[in-house]
Amino acid sequence: MASYKAPLNDMNFVLFDVLKADGLSQLPGFEDATEEMIRAVLEEASKFAENVFQPTNQDGDIEGCQYDPETHNVTTPKGFKEAYKTFAEGGWSGLSATTEYGGQGLPHLLKIVVDEMACSTNLSLGMYPGLSHGAIDALTEHAEQELKDKYLPQLISGEWTGTMCLTEPQCGTDLGLIRTKAEPQADGSYNISGTKIWITGGEHDMVDNIVHLVLAKLPGAPDSSKGISLFLVPKFLEDGSRNPAFCGGLEHKMGIKGSATCVMNFEGAKGWLIGKENEGLKCMFTMMNAARIMVGVQGLGLAEKAYQISLGFAKERLQSRSLTGPKSPDEKADPIIVHPDVRRMLMQQKVFLEGARCMAYFTGYHLDLAHKHDDESVREESDDIVQIMTPIIKAYLTDEGFFSTDQALQSMGGSGFTQDWEVEQLLRDGRIARIYEGTNGIQALDLTGRKLTIKGGRLPKTFFKVMNAMIADLDNAEHQEKCKTLLKTLQGALMWLGQEAMKDPEQAGAAATPLLKLFSLCAMSVMWATMAKKANEGLGSGKYEDAFYQGKIKAAEHFFRLALSQAEMHKADIEAGKSTLMDMAEGEF
Amino acid sequence: MASYKAPLNDMNFVLFDVLKADGLSQLPGFEDATEEMIRAVLEEASKFAENVFQPTNQDGDIEGCQYDPETHNVTTPKGFKEAYKTFAEGGWSGLSATTEYGGQGLPHLLKIVVDEMACSTNLSLGMYPGLSHGAIDALTEHAEQELKDKYLPQLISGEWTGTMCLTEPQCGTDLGLIRTKAEPQADGSYNISGTKIWITGGEHDMVDNIVHLVLAKLPGAPDSSKGISLFLVPKFLEDGSRNPAFCGGLEHKMGIKGSATCVMNFEGAKGWLIGKENEGLKCMFTMMNAARIMVGVQGLGLAEKAYQISLGFAKERLQSRSLTGPKSPDEKADPIIVHPDVRRMLMQQKVFLEGARCMAYFTGYHLDLAHKHDDESVREESDDIVQIMTPIIKAYLTDEGFFSTDQALQSMGGSGFTQDWEVEQLLRDGRIARIYEGTNGIQALDLTGRKLTIKGGRLPKTFFKVMNAMIADLDNAEHQEKCKTLLKTLQGALMWLGQEAMKDPEQAGAAATPLLKLFSLCAMSVMWATMAKKANEGLGSGKYEDAFYQGKIKAAEHFFRLALSQAEMHKADIEAGKSTLMDMAEGEF
Repeated sequence: MASYKAPLNDMNFVLFDVLKADGLSQLPGFEDATEEMIRAVLEEASKFAENVFQPTNQDGDIEGCQYDPETHNVTTPKGFKEAYKTFAEGGWSGLSATTEYGGQGLPHLLKIVVDEMACSTNLSLGMYPGLSHGAIDALTEHAEQELKDKYLPQLISGEWTGTMCLTEPQCGTDLGLIRTKAEPQADGSYNISGTKIWITGGEHDMVDNIVHLVLAKLPGAPDSSKGISLFLVPKFLEDGSRNPAFCGGLEHKMGIKGSATCVMNFEGAKGWLIGKENEGLKCMFTMMNAARIMVGVQGLGLAEKAYQISLGFAKERLQSRSLTGPKSPDEKADPIIVHPDVRRMLMQQKVFLEGARCMAYFTGYHLDLAHKHDDESVREESDDIVQIMTPIIKAYLTDEGFFSTDQALQSMGGSGFTQDWEVEQLLRDGRIARIYEGTNGIQALDLTGRKLTIKGGRLPKTFFKVMNAMIADLDNAEHQEKCKTLLKTLQGALMWLGQEAMKDPEQAGAAATPLLKLFSLCAMSVMWATMAKKANEGLGSGKYEDAFYQGKIKAAEHFFRLALSQAEMHKADIEAGKSTLMDMAEGEF
Repeated sequence: MASYKAPLNDMNFVLFDVLKADGLSQLPGFEDATEEMIRAVLEEASKFAENVFQPTNQDGDIEGCQYDPETHNVTTPKGFKEAYKTFAEGGWSGLSATTEYGGQGLPHLLKIVVDEMACSTNLSLGMYPGLSHGAIDALTEHAEQELKDKYLPQLISGEWTGTMCLTEPQCGTDLGLIRTKAEPQADGSYNISGTKIWITGGEHDMVDNIVHLVLAKLPGAPDSSKGISLFLVPKFLEDGSRNPAFCGGLEHKMGIKGSATCVMNFEGAKGWLIGKENEGLKCMFTMMNAARIMVGVQGLGLAEKAYQISLGFAKERLQSRSLTGPKSPDEKADPIIVHPDVRRMLMQQKVFLEGARCMAYFTGYHLDLAHKHDDESVREESDDIVQIMTPIIKAYLTDEGFFSTDQALQSMGGSGFTQDWEVEQLLRDGRIARIYEGTNGIQALDLTGRKLTIKGGRLPKTFFKVMNAMIADLDNAEHQEKCKTLLKTLQGALMWLGQEAMKDPEQAGAAATPLLKLFSLCAMSVMWATMAKKANEGLGSGKYEDAFYQGKIKAAEHFFRLALSQAEMHKADIEAGKSTLMDMAEGEF
């Protein structure tokens, strides 16, 4: 019933009017990534998402994946295999992968925009190549030449897919507890034995081979997260024989039912070491930023589609009269978009979506600068931004994306609760994004316990520097003032935390979640103020319709409606300290 | 995997220590409702919920209801029929119904507590008799003697169930748009024709007869909500013949899958008028308070079970070490309840649940006073409280109950997302409670546009009077001060609104949702401060364990941690007015 159209104007506005992403073509290796080229790629991607990914989404949810305990095989929903094949043939698997192995070598920013469309139209399907991408990054960065040569071309072409095998029944967050073992063999390979759970795409029927990246422990390795190594374990070995890495069953989940979430049993499977011994976690972390940003974009993508559906509904559904008299006098009632409370739900979505998109693309832009800029100081500054923004993007976009989708559902009343309108699926699918790739609580701890302190506390300094530079660039004094007030509120909270957390690390643990929200608000304020400025400049230019620009300008006002009092609340929460949380004895809950 | 235990201590604490509900036995007709008797009934109810309702919940969700298009029959999930039969035989259907027709005539407050347990253990199943209860109320209040004699005994005994047929494809909120027709017949009956949708329990296999209450229009009736009449339409007529009121299909929904949500086609079905012509909406509204309070309790009940599951999980799941050093040194990791951020999620639940329970029971207590007290001024005051609290209970308990369940799921990480732990089902089931029986936006408009203004604005005055009396009763000066500050914040917002809404009704529409939240916070603050006082008094008494009392006292502190800054935010939201919502042209969204 619902039909998504990629918000190309919104996307291009952020890319070229706000971020000036055409500048990426001046970076070494990105010469082809001109504005014209990026626009053309996005145009193609939008058609692909709308026409290939979208049609299989609802049926995929209803049908789900099927497991056959006899063969250990997994069947994906009808149409997934064909859609994936079209995806791979279109070269989308290797969009940002190295040209050395057949990738297109385009900016990561571009991949983020394309990911957004894929997440909007079929998250379950998009996750199979999404996991491949993580494997491609890890191999590109850490594997020896021979392994690269053997596995990268097929992963990049999409002929094969990849997985990340981290979680075990007894450990998710705390990977130091891993029990999977790797026994060295005479030929330089390893025998991998153990059980992994929640493995996305661990087994499926869309490709001929699956390349598992598996965390395991070598004999005698330290009994902590410093004793974990990373291994490549293919489903089929070079000689075509089946490696004993079998799917033991599928999880039954609230959402993303078209994505095969597998129990994987490694029964002495042959594998090869990636990177150095006991440095498996380090290898995983190098691809974590991109993976976490992508999960954030899932929250955004799902919420975008929900917004489109609910906005269409609000314009069509006739129910009750406007409080100021009939707006559609020829009908028996007015469209519900006339009601202030319905607009409240729509505006909450619009403000989240467009601000979050700007924040995600801004971070993606810095990811490319961090990798490719020829000036080391620019690379460093951009890397700081990426490092500190990554947990924010992951947690804020998935939390608020969920609540945005929730508002879409609510604004549609009973219709939103039925499967007819897809929004309930988007809400279920989006629930997992707040959990996997590190729960949002873990993101908050990563921000508070790690990102604020590493490199002598340089990351938050860079954050403030970059934000202040953007604020200095504004020409709306009121926006400027509000952004400054927000940053000052954040700075106050950070000062309090700096003193308290030194005395007691639990203060940082207690402050983590509201602190991440406060950071998010600050970044959002700068994004919205900047977008409002660019929209104001664009009025009358004809580049986009004036209604488009006006929508941005007015949405910025709606964002600032509550930003300051929300920030005050988070600061109060932080400065209330740990006591009401930690004073409770276990038996008092 | 999960096992709910009715929180009898928490329930009894609110009933007898906070509300002094033993006083209900002094009301005429409630002589039997002594503390001893109420405790005994709740003890029985808890066993019933835990042992009869609970076991069918998860399977009922997976199996769902089945529709047969040949016969128009609906099959409920395995075990539902037997569980319902046990429920009816136990006399639970008529717990608060009039003794004249076989009910037990017990206080409505008691029914609310029992409802909470039913909602915790199997909402889908509990909805069938829940709808009967609405029909019982409507018939008791408005039907002529003959109809009462014919239908009330079987509804009250649970031998038959009832429905409410309001919604049609073109109208949910706006019932003035109803098209179902009622043609008067020579024998005094009416021929009912039309299609109703989203009819809970419209057709099912658990009972021999179903009594539909149907809103329809008489010939020549006004074309608005003032032209609607209410009819009783049984599935089987007295002579045993089938009345043409057929199920045309089931909705496919996000949750409450064991509850049959039916399309109902009335094809010239025989019906009888209830109440006066064109006063159907009035008849529905008399049962609306009880129905809306019950939906609020659904949000509470689901969240209670989710809390129990997540609390158990947090005590058992070992992952990472406490930030202040190992707490379970003999294990490889500490239980996750040691982590501040996990406690944040648990405390949010505890504070919501126990405060909301107190608020719901407080309102239920006043519902009984409003009906039964022999002093008219007490009845009036209690009715004011019920009237103003009803939309608050409905919206706040279902919204926050959903978010509380959401926190339970989040605190369990990936486990929460799987069907193994039931929390994801509780979240899906709870999503509808924010929509049906009037969306929460409609509740906010009911509060702002109706409850604040009727009876010359007496309701909010009574609210402040009762709250201030409870505040005066406190002995903790800090709590007293904070409660007063919250009420003052609310009063300020009401003053602003009083002035603005007179000039422009859309200001009230724009303010409605944050105003309801602000009211809720005020009521919650008085409930928590009162509970803290009673808990403080109870320390060392041995009535409950000291850990129980300490838990209440500390949770009250956690509630007040953020209450004031949240209230400021809502006030700012209200006073920001309608402009950022209403200034948007439709094309600017």
